[in-house]
Amino acid sequence: MWGGRFETGPSAALEAINASVDVDKRLYEQDIAGSLAHAEMLAACGIISSDDASRIREGLEAIRADIRAGRFEWSTALEDVHMNIEAALKERIGEAGGRLHTARSRNDQVATDFRLWLREACARAEDGLRRYQVALVDQAEAHADWVMPGFTHLQTAQPVSLGHHLMCWVEAAERDRGRLADARRRMNESPLGAAALAGTAFPIDREMTAKALGFDRPMANSLDAVASRDFALEALSAATIAAVNLSRFADEIVLWCSRRFGFATLTDAFSTGSSIMPQKRNPDAAELVRAKPGSIAGALQGLVIVCKGLPLAYSKDLQEDKAGVFAAFDDLMLAIEAMAGMAADLSFDRDALEIAAGEAYSDATDLADWLVRELGLPFRDAHHVAGAAVKAAERRSLPLAETPLAVFQEIEPRIHDGVFAVLSARASMESRTSYGGTAPDRVREQIAAWRRRFEEDAS
Amino acid sequence: MWGGRFETGPSAALEAINASVDVDKRLYEQDIAGSLAHAEMLAACGIISSDDASRIREGLEAIRADIRAGRFEWSTALEDVHMNIEAALKERIGEAGGRLHTARSRNDQVATDFRLWLREACARAEDGLRRYQVALVDQAEAHADWVMPGFTHLQTAQPVSLGHHLMCWVEAAERDRGRLADARRRMNESPLGAAALAGTAFPIDREMTAKALGFDRPMANSLDAVASRDFALEALSAATIAAVNLSRFADEIVLWCSRRFGFATLTDAFSTGSSIMPQKRNPDAAELVRAKPGSIAGALQGLVIVCKGLPLAYSKDLQEDKAGVFAAFDDLMLAIEAMAGMAADLSFDRDALEIAAGEAYSDATDLADWLVRELGLPFRDAHHVAGAAVKAAERRSLPLAETPLAVFQEIEPRIHDGVFAVLSARASMESRTSYGGTAPDRVREQIAAWRRRFEEDAS
Amino acid sequence: MWGGRFETGPSAALEAINASVDVDKRLYEQDIAGSLAHAEMLAACGIISSDDASRIREGLEAIRADIRAGRFEWSTALEDVHMNIEAALKERIGEAGGRLHTARSRNDQVATDFRLWLREACARAEDGLRRYQVALVDQAEAHADWVMPGFTHLQTAQPVSLGHHLMCWVEAAERDRGRLADARRRMNESPLGAAALAGTAFPIDREMTAKALGFDRPMANSLDAVASRDFALEALSAATIAAVNLSRFADEIVLWCSRRFGFATLTDAFSTGSSIMPQKRNPDAAELVRAKPGSIAGALQGLVIVCKGLPLAYSKDLQEDKAGVFAAFDDLMLAIEAMAGMAADLSFDRDALEIAAGEAYSDATDLADWLVRELGLPFRDAHHVAGAAVKAAERRSLPLAETPLAVFQEIEPRIHDGVFAVLSARASMESRTSYGGTAPDRVREQIAAWRRRFEEDAS
Amino acid sequence: MWGGRFETGPSAALEAINASVDVDKRLYEQDIAGSLAHAEMLAACGIISSDDASRIREGLEAIRADIRAGRFEWSTALEDVHMNIEAALKERIGEAGGRLHTARSRNDQVATDFRLWLREACARAEDGLRRYQVALVDQAEAHADWVMPGFTHLQTAQPVSLGHHLMCWVEAAERDRGRLADARRRMNESPLGAAALAGTAFPIDREMTAKALGFDRPMANSLDAVASRDFALEALSAATIAAVNLSRFADEIVLWCSRRFGFATLTDAFSTGSSIMPQKRNPDAAELVRAKPGSIAGALQGLVIVCKGLPLAYSKDLQEDKAGVFAAFDDLMLAIEAMAGMAADLSFDRDALEIAAGEAYSDATDLADWLVRELGLPFRDAHHVAGAAVKAAERRSLPLAETPLAVFQEIEPRIHDGVFAVLSARASMESRTSYGGTAPDRVREQIAAWRRRFEEDAS
Repeated sequence: MWGGRFETGPSAALEAINASVDVDKRLYEQDIAGSLAHAEMLAACGIISSDDASRIREGLEAIRADIRAGRFEWSTALEDVHMNIEAALKERIGEAGGRLHTARSRNDQVATDFRLWLREACARAEDGLRRYQVALVDQAEAHADWVMPGFTHLQTAQPVSLGHHLMCWVEAAERDRGRLADARRRMNESPLGAAALAGTAFPIDREMTAKALGFDRPMANSLDAVASRDFALEALSAATIAAVNLSRFADEIVLWCSRRFGFATLTDAFSTGSSIMPQKRNPDAAELVRAKPGSIAGALQGLVIVCKGLPLAYSKDLQEDKAGVFAAFDDLMLAIEAMAGMAADLSFDRDALEIAAGEAYSDATDLADWLVRELGLPFRDAHHVAGAAVKAAERRSLPLAETPLAVFQEIEPRIHDGVFAVLSARASMESRTSYGGTAPDRVREQIAAWRRRFEEDAS
Repeated sequence: MWGGRFETGPSAALEAINASVDVDKRLYEQDIAGSLAHAEMLAACGIISSDDASRIREGLEAIRADIRAGRFEWSTALEDVHMNIEAALKERIGEAGGRLHTARSRNDQVATDFRLWLREACARAEDGLRRYQVALVDQAEAHADWVMPGFTHLQTAQPVSLGHHLMCWVEAAERDRGRLADARRRMNESPLGAAALAGTAFPIDREMTAKALGFDRPMANSLDAVASRDFALEALSAATIAAVNLSRFADEIVLWCSRRFGFATLTDAFSTGSSIMPQKRNPDAAELVRAKPGSIAGALQGLVIVCKGLPLAYSKDLQEDKAGVFAAFDDLMLAIEAMAGMAADLSFDRDALEIAAGEAYSDATDLADWLVRELGLPFRDAHHVAGAAVKAAERRSLPLAETPLAVFQEIEPRIHDGVFAVLSARASMESRTSYGGTAPDRVREQIAAWRRRFEEDAS
Repeated sequence: MWGGRFETGPSAALEAINASVDVDKRLYEQDIAGSLAHAEMLAACGIISSDDASRIREGLEAIRADIRAGRFEWSTALEDVHMNIEAALKERIGEAGGRLHTARSRNDQVATDFRLWLREACARAEDGLRRYQVALVDQAEAHADWVMPGFTHLQTAQPVSLGHHLMCWVEAAERDRGRLADARRRMNESPLGAAALAGTAFPIDREMTAKALGFDRPMANSLDAVASRDFALEALSAATIAAVNLSRFADEIVLWCSRRFGFATLTDAFSTGSSIMPQKRNPDAAELVRAKPGSIAGALQGLVIVCKGLPLAYSKDLQEDKAGVFAAFDDLMLAIEAMAGMAADLSFDRDALEIAAGEAYSDATDLADWLVRELGLPFRDAHHVAGAAVKAAERRSLPLAETPLAVFQEIEPRIHDGVFAVLSARASMESRTSYGGTAPDRVREQIAAWRRRFEEDAS
Repeated sequence: MWGGRFETGPSAALEAINASVDVDKRLYEQDIAGSLAHAEMLAACGIISSDDASRIREGLEAIRADIRAGRFEWSTALEDVHMNIEAALKERIGEAGGRLHTARSRNDQVATDFRLWLREACARAEDGLRRYQVALVDQAEAHADWVMPGFTHLQTAQPVSLGHHLMCWVEAAERDRGRLADARRRMNESPLGAAALAGTAFPIDREMTAKALGFDRPMANSLDAVASRDFALEALSAATIAAVNLSRFADEIVLWCSRRFGFATLTDAFSTGSSIMPQKRNPDAAELVRAKPGSIAGALQGLVIVCKGLPLAYSKDLQEDKAGVFAAFDDLMLAIEAMAGMAADLSFDRDALEIAAGEAYSDATDLADWLVRELGLPFRDAHHVAGAAVKAAERRSLPLAETPLAVFQEIEPRIHDGVFAVLSARASMESRTSYGGTAPDRVREQIAAWRRRFEEDAS
């Protein structure tokens, strides 16, 4: 495979650590697409004959059909996807197959294949996140005016709309889509034609292959083309951040479906049971999504370690880029699909949510704000008065709304019974009409804006 | 500080782990800018009086002057930068100071401060990278036709232009700038007015504060505004990837300045000595840059861990976001400045580079390509012939250019003496004229394109 | 500082990235202890005079007193703690100060200092974890027979003893202590005398300095002594794993103190309030402990990146080892102290725990086990029958214990009213008497065993 | 599978994310060993009949034979290795198969399997590292007095013995072995019998199963048994650190085999070629070893993320523990075998090493030390004088050994021609006789000590 200078074969240890075909055979579609574009260009530029190009095309298409049909025999001794396919080509079409590798190298070839694969993987993740968003918006619309406790520090803080809560994850997912799209756009340059590292003396047309493969342009520096992997680091970063955002909502699903919260249930479609406890209904998918940032951020960290301090141009270390990226994007897609499914599957317990929203003095801020608005107290003083009122009510085991006016007046004599208008979870939620706030009308405006956006993007 | 419901103070262990002012006081400029915008808006909306707003403005400006002058006493008991400044304000201007916190919370406040700080930090890093690029382009221009060995696997592969090599890092730095800019743009939305988590019932104008602080718009969901930290994860990702790219060139500087390579030297301005070995000239700065992905990627992974699985909305875990980000961007700036300095400081040894470029049969690919072009061999066969020629030459301890024609003809009888025209490092470099290739004319085209780009960006 | 070969000073960029004194001045105690041992040895071996050794000792002790008293002026231009102290020594005692650096280098010096510091930090963490264990055992003893829901997937699974639950964290903490102790033992070898990298021609006595500094022995290979940092990686690993274990219990505290669970409360000593919501009682310390694996694992990953692929012997990259380690062990100690405090501070709501323990068919496994024991059903069949019983009871909104026998018999006719003896949370807990099981007697045995162990370790 | 309470099947998204059999089928040997021990114990304790136990044993052995022979059909619908084997058992032996799962759960089962697997994987890695050490010691013995440049900052620092250099990695590998052994010992406790989380009411004998499976003891707390994964974190930490140490020597192999260094060559057994450059001999295995800390530290980081903040007891997140651990230990073994192979395969160029050792004023410290010993200069002054001497020699392009005495005397008049005795690379190396130093006799002592240790360990 490496020409005439080697006398003995590799040791078993070298062969074992070096072979990558088990991992990179997954690139066969990209590899063949790249070879087809390269062969057509070589012929167009007069570097190989049209006949050779035709034979190469037919050979590659036949090999592709074999692989797709599961009829292709992969060989570890042939190291990687590139050599496996090239060897099969040569066997199938003879000498013409040996002309395909003119003016290229495995270095630019693998960089091309990998960018093509990753471009597609990002696009798939973006599409999946959009489906997840649509499921969230549907649920948000159905629950725009349901009141639930908003938490900070997992303590009941202020009542919010369930729809508002769900729309938060629509926002986060859109940024995740943006990061994936940015990564996809930035990587969309063609390394093909950089050859081993220095370009080539053959009169190739890199614009032509770039265009054929859907790249925006050929890369401008041949060393950069074969040595850079920041595109993979960026895609892994985007995947990691998306997985973190998903893990946060996943944790909420676990909480909400627990007996202690009782806010929501998943149907059998998203529940599992126990091999020992017959009563269990476990939110396994949510737990697994919560865990997925592990493998994905691990892959990112792994590639950072691989690339750190690596001199130009191609080093074999870079072969370690693919296993992590493949696993990370597989895991991301599993997580996205599971979340899109669960977002649609969840059903909510209106009473449980509303009761919880009214507990724990979630309207204390409303009392403080009322003191500012009605009595002109500085907020800091109002905050203090409201705190004392909570304490007094707590001592009586009463919600603020049922605490006698006299109790309030002992703390601040100017409080009058107008205050009771703001003291309920629903009143609190409805009052927060600032832009981006949780008042249902505001939430519905956001939902409508997202619906329009979905439509625009689809058209 | 937390109003009237607490009876005893915090334990020492709580106070120790909870206090963040040693870290977050660094946000004082952003915190005061945010408060100034908030107060002005409150007055414009009739929520506080103009008089109060004036007093607040004067108070905050005086406090800012004190902090800038090092006259401000930070208190750990007051927890964080926000409470320190607010307490100072109240002490200075009395009751009006207590009105500033109307319709906001520390939750939206810290998110605002942090975005402002990070927006600026990204911009500084982008500017620094541009200076680094300019230094690289200057050096590339001066060395566009110097020949050096291009390496793969750190083995001599093919001759390349030194200018071409340096331009590779200009390309990488531009992608790094793009990632930082994308992060900066995506984070440029205002959380201010989201209050604790749910928005507010006060008739605030979030567009006004957003505009005053240079944000593109207010964030659309109040929960998202206080709970999201993906903006920081993204900035850390961009910083990590930039640091990895810098570490790669840094490693090359370490190699090039070693006695074994002898390709380049740093002046005293970028060399250090040894406390025990008087002859040493150490490239400490390059080694430290090589190491910097450690702390920066560590900060990224740290924040992934913090955010993973965190339910809405604000949890105190998020306080752990700042120390890592501050350290990471400090380290990134140190690395960028050191690399910009070293890129300009390096001087190269033309002879050493050229001799090395000609060693180790770096022209073997040129021989193979010649066999394809002149004799019509398929590349794979040509590769095999060239390998055998290398082996034959190696046995005679001769470079290809000095190997007798008869030796070549023993391997492939059709080889004629036209082959010697392609057998030298310089010829090899000059022949690679494909787009993005290492031929000096191609390199100069790239340099010119970058010069134009720098000018456009500056205008 | 570097002798006579440098003509111009370092650039600002080099000085900025190179100076480490802000970080490593923290090693001053270790640095002076190391120098004292080194000077005494040099005199004992006749390499310097006793007079010089005395002067060095007095000078170093005076400098140490100055530093402890905050009277020492650290200089960034002098780079690091070693040069700062040595320069001060020379200024104070003249020529003799210049003899201290005989037969050593900053390379072995910093490795020695760092090992001494980290040995102590590990020991401190082990002690702190022991205090945490004692607090847990105290609480476990007081709550050995309180019944609470045991969760899997955060779903109610089987009733367990609260004491049993708390003892789980005692076990985990003991493994954490073991890892820290192993790291401490493995690092306890002296690098001192390895000099720059190769040892020295001076007739030094490395055993003597090793013994004086409490090391078990001198390191056997001088290159290893200055180049290895796996001791720091191991300590960071132990710290990371300990932090992860603490984060898990911290998350439980957050859950238990939430209104939804209502299992436990923290006193004011471990609660914080809100700047906007007067009713809030936030478990900030628990949230911060939950977040601490971030910075600590980040430091570990950072040092992995730094060390990866670094050739022998000392490279400046290794200077990046300390900031992360210092921060990680600071954070670990904060987390340990906070957890020890909270473990003691928590008070539990017996009724809430018991009610929750009885919900959600937590005795379904007991029904299945009864079917195996009493009716001889294979477990898999029993599991199926119990699942059907839960479904039937659920349809009636009844707990199993109140479900009519006839309902059970419809599913499995042989069920008789003996079954009701196992159908309660308390009965379930008490029945699990297998070794390590949750039956209170078993828990009390474990508590007693731990008490004995604490006493043995203390004696 | 989950008994009678589920009405509809899982969604495709749940099934896809939930199935683990593709990963965990690798545990089949451990799973069957655990089941065999469990069944035997159940019979011994009278919980199942001897007949059932016999049938179970025969059934499991037959299944094991099928799996080993590749005749077993794994089913994704059956989720995992445990359910696949149990279903096959039930199909094969009927009702008795349903009795096997008495008094256990998948929670303690998988924890048992995983500990057994990891215990073995650690032992394998320890053995492999020992082979690597033996190869290093063999090479060190053959090259104990070969002189080579010792580097700091990759600058020539002081001459060292090649044997000394190689022995450094023996030391590091021994610590790596120690960490793996500690992890192995600490994890060697049996979770079996903890059942789902709370223990069991069946009168089981956990000591018996623990002993049968080679565990030191049963775990003392049933919650800990099913919920803890710190044993896997510790094993991954040990693997990560070992990989980092290997990566450092791997980088040296890459450097040494480069044309620029020319210190060493690998035979064809550890070299690969290029698909485009026929002259190339690439040290691929060394590069891949250098990269392996990526995937391994990534797996560690991944599991930290998974475990962080996870409440008791078992959560499905923990299913994400295995893929990373399997891949990490596979990669570690590949790296160890490749390094053991390369350590033996390397051949060194004595002349190249010796010439390099004498360059770059590597004897400057010897000059400084001579000034201290012979002229009584304080080291700091001697360092300054030696620095000036280097500068003077450098200006004349002479090594110190060939610099005229007069030149030295201009700098320090007391220098006499005795100085030349210490001015050579070999003299320098031989003079460093301090314990752990690079003098060949010292190195040979270390080699002998290691030989004894290997023998003792083997006996």
